[in-house]
Amino acid sequence: MSKIQISLGEIAGRIGGEIINGRDDMLICAVAGLKDAKEGEISFLAHRRYLKDLDSTSASAVVIPRDISFERLPAVRVDNPYFAFSQLLHLFHDSPCAARGVDPGVFMGNNVHLGNDISIYPYVYIGDNAIIGDNVIIHPFAFIGNDTVIGNNSVIYSNVSVRERCRIGSRVIIHCGAVIGSDGFGYATHQGTHHKIPQVGGVIVEDDVEIGANTAIDRGTIGDTIIRKGTKIDNLIQIAHNVSIGENCLLAAQSGIAGSSKTGNYVIMAGQSGVVDHVNVGNKVIITAQSAATKDIQDGETVSGMPSMPHRNWLKAMAVFEDLPDIKKRVAELEKRLTDMEGKQ
Amino acid sequence: MSKIQISLGEIAGRIGGEIINGRDDMLICAVAGLKDAKEGEISFLAHRRYLKDLDSTSASAVVIPRDISFERLPAVRVDNPYFAFSQLLHLFHDSPCAARGVDPGVFMGNNVHLGNDISIYPYVYIGDNAIIGDNVIIHPFAFIGNDTVIGNNSVIYSNVSVRERCRIGSRVIIHCGAVIGSDGFGYATHQGTHHKIPQVGGVIVEDDVEIGANTAIDRGTIGDTIIRKGTKIDNLIQIAHNVSIGENCLLAAQSGIAGSSKTGNYVIMAGQSGVVDHVNVGNKVIITAQSAATKDIQDGETVSGMPSMPHRNWLKAMAVFEDLPDIKKRVAELEKRLTDMEGKQ
Amino acid sequence: MSKIQISLGEIAGRIGGEIINGRDDMLICAVAGLKDAKEGEISFLAHRRYLKDLDSTSASAVVIPRDISFERLPAVRVDNPYFAFSQLLHLFHDSPCAARGVDPGVFMGNNVHLGNDISIYPYVYIGDNAIIGDNVIIHPFAFIGNDTVIGNNSVIYSNVSVRERCRIGSRVIIHCGAVIGSDGFGYATHQGTHHKIPQVGGVIVEDDVEIGANTAIDRGTIGDTIIRKGTKIDNLIQIAHNVSIGENCLLAAQSGIAGSSKTGNYVIMAGQSGVVDHVNVGNKVIITAQSAATKDIQDGETVSGMPSMPHRNWLKAMAVFEDLPDIKKRVAELEKRLTDMEGKQ
Repeated sequence: MSKIQISLGEIAGRIGGEIINGRDDMLICAVAGLKDAKEGEISFLAHRRYLKDLDSTSASAVVIPRDISFERLPAVRVDNPYFAFSQLLHLFHDSPCAARGVDPGVFMGNNVHLGNDISIYPYVYIGDNAIIGDNVIIHPFAFIGNDTVIGNNSVIYSNVSVRERCRIGSRVIIHCGAVIGSDGFGYATHQGTHHKIPQVGGVIVEDDVEIGANTAIDRGTIGDTIIRKGTKIDNLIQIAHNVSIGENCLLAAQSGIAGSSKTGNYVIMAGQSGVVDHVNVGNKVIITAQSAATKDIQDGETVSGMPSMPHRNWLKAMAVFEDLPDIKKRVAELEKRLTDMEGKQ
Repeated sequence: MSKIQISLGEIAGRIGGEIINGRDDMLICAVAGLKDAKEGEISFLAHRRYLKDLDSTSASAVVIPRDISFERLPAVRVDNPYFAFSQLLHLFHDSPCAARGVDPGVFMGNNVHLGNDISIYPYVYIGDNAIIGDNVIIHPFAFIGNDTVIGNNSVIYSNVSVRERCRIGSRVIIHCGAVIGSDGFGYATHQGTHHKIPQVGGVIVEDDVEIGANTAIDRGTIGDTIIRKGTKIDNLIQIAHNVSIGENCLLAAQSGIAGSSKTGNYVIMAGQSGVVDHVNVGNKVIITAQSAATKDIQDGETVSGMPSMPHRNWLKAMAVFEDLPDIKKRVAELEKRLTDMEGKQ
Repeated sequence: MSKIQISLGEIAGRIGGEIINGRDDMLICAVAGLKDAKEGEISFLAHRRYLKDLDSTSASAVVIPRDISFERLPAVRVDNPYFAFSQLLHLFHDSPCAARGVDPGVFMGNNVHLGNDISIYPYVYIGDNAIIGDNVIIHPFAFIGNDTVIGNNSVIYSNVSVRERCRIGSRVIIHCGAVIGSDGFGYATHQGTHHKIPQVGGVIVEDDVEIGANTAIDRGTIGDTIIRKGTKIDNLIQIAHNVSIGENCLLAAQSGIAGSSKTGNYVIMAGQSGVVDHVNVGNKVIITAQSAATKDIQDGETVSGMPSMPHRNWLKAMAVFEDLPDIKKRVAELEKRLTDMEGKQ
């Protein structure tokens, strides 16, 4: 895709690295994985487990950690080669494009405030009193509700709905089909009828949050659902009403958090995991795949299973799980042998 | 948000309650939770577990059940304070707005029947022969297929797709991104090829149903998928072809029901739970979080686990689960001790 | 719905069957299940477990396998009655409609290539350099990104997003709300900040693939996410970046595959099942409902549980699971009895 060439010297400068075995003016045309890289391309060693791929790569240069000795190819030494990889992808693939302005096919409500250098594609709906920050990009079929704020440099992809009175921070990315501000799932059951509880709160999405495709984040009943800064949310995730998610969390696809639960910072939820309602999940907690936090979880714990238990205990128990039929049989045999012996005494 | 003030007397009248410790003309400006309420606001005691919050709330008045004695603040006694809360939210937050009619930016098929006092936003597609009831609100980027019926007072949010020949009842709410009437997942595998089985049935959504964001409800293969009246469906839920869901069920987020299964009335499915295909789930059944009903379930049962078992059995077994490695070890020790003893005899 | 009548002779010809007990000129007006069929309709025996329904059906004719003897009704004998059923649904329900061309309300980018006999509904966005094949149908609010290819005879339903540089094959069906080409979930964490890794790969969807409502398929980080020919993907499924799915797989609703994992051909994933990242799943593997493949799985295996184990072992262990509290109690009793006996010696 990229047709540009960048010198190894410029690359080293951009990623804060030191060149060994090579020359500054060597030209690089792309970045690729160790196994896929071809001549003219640069690759990287993300983890020591790929050392053998480093020895056989066809790349013309590599990015390696500072503590590896390597002589076969020109290399750039850095502290964190995986981070350097992300920087290299920006270097080779970011294509600055001029703001396209507001397409005439945009429906613009009353009293909308538009920032500078925005790009709003055709077939976008922007409600009354919305505030759209500088450099914002909004793709087709996106719905921005009344009184909603989209911060500077944020990107809203196609078919996204951000309903009324939500506040989206700066540098936020919302992927196709995501829904922000849908009604929470709340009913008061009275005489056999489920009466809808009006959901009059909002959603606050802080700076540098990313929200995946077809994810749903409900508004608060009263008060707000909050996603704090730097948190990354994958596809098809459910965030219920009045949930509060801390900073810099990573939520993998198809996980879900039920109503009014709170998480600390740097929490990791693996795929298809859950948090039940009204619990507190501490800082740096990890909830493993298909598991659920069913009670408060202390800082730093890794939990697994449903109901949740310390990951180590779960691992040990699951290691024995397949032996269950054998254990049951052995217990019956023991009972028989013991009864026989008791009879003999 | 609300700037109105409502007297305690009017509040008591609306929620059918009796004022104690206070005056009818006391003015209330908002409703809030016990912990969040401020001066001038009214709060409510939803459950006895929050009695201590009642004692410390800064609210100016509270709604309490009839059987609580409480003297610190003006209070309104009702049968069901949580239901009163939902009524209060309507009282303070419902803003009647005039129907906006049909925006010129709506695509209208042939022979569409439009009810009175409807609000159809720009960028809505309405197919041929569709029938739109009175007071219906349809938000941008909603697709209404040919021959589909939307009943009176229903609300269709943005980016919703209701495909052809579906029948949506009255007072139905369909949240952003939901899909009604997608093809069921049916194939006839013949000589190694999966041949699509045309899905020619429809979907019937009865009155007072609510359908969450990004939920998918497939049409029947032949015959209809049915959601009966009063049932509430949360976000990101899968309802497969020819499923029949009873009245007044509550399905929490990310749950799913496979093809041709049926549920009775007042069934509760917790988050991330499932029902396998071709089973019957009785009335008032509860399927707990991350569990699956893998066979027919009798009326009134609560089931857990996968495969499903009585909740009580599951709880007891899970309480012992972490002991599995210890149990295995103890069995081995018993065997050794018994063998030793047998050797001595 | 269908008002047509088709002779039994024509039906037999179309499904490659042989008529017994009946006449070629008998007229059939619809196809229905054994229990639902009425006079004038034809039904089918999909499985021997429905033999008693065959004896009581009110259908006027039935499709049966060649090895069944049956005399009560006119019948058509075929190799695979369920496949014949799918053919009959096409016969009675397919309504050829003329291509509607490109609606004036379509936003057409620069340098788009349009095939013959296409139908593009209003409110569709087609990006620059997109290629739309012959006979393609694109419904309202579908977004087709720059440089994306849609193969011949494919159907894109409403509110679908196919982002830039994706290649969709021929005869592909993408249901409402699905997202193809969203960014993969990749971050390089450096000094406490999660830095987004640009996702510069694409998605390749081969011929005859079907993709369900609100499913999300992420683009590759570098290189492509691939769905091979004939694979059918249900609703609300997550396919992460750089996943490769083989041919003719069946993925049921709410299942998910994490980053860089690969499957062979004819893999079946049941509802709410998963595959963790970086594993290889062999040909003809079955992953049962709510289970996860947590390591490489060999060809032909059926796995269950989390972590995954052979299905047979899982079944046996789950059959004993409810006995766990009893087993623990019996072990304690054995210990007591043995200690008593040891004391007596």
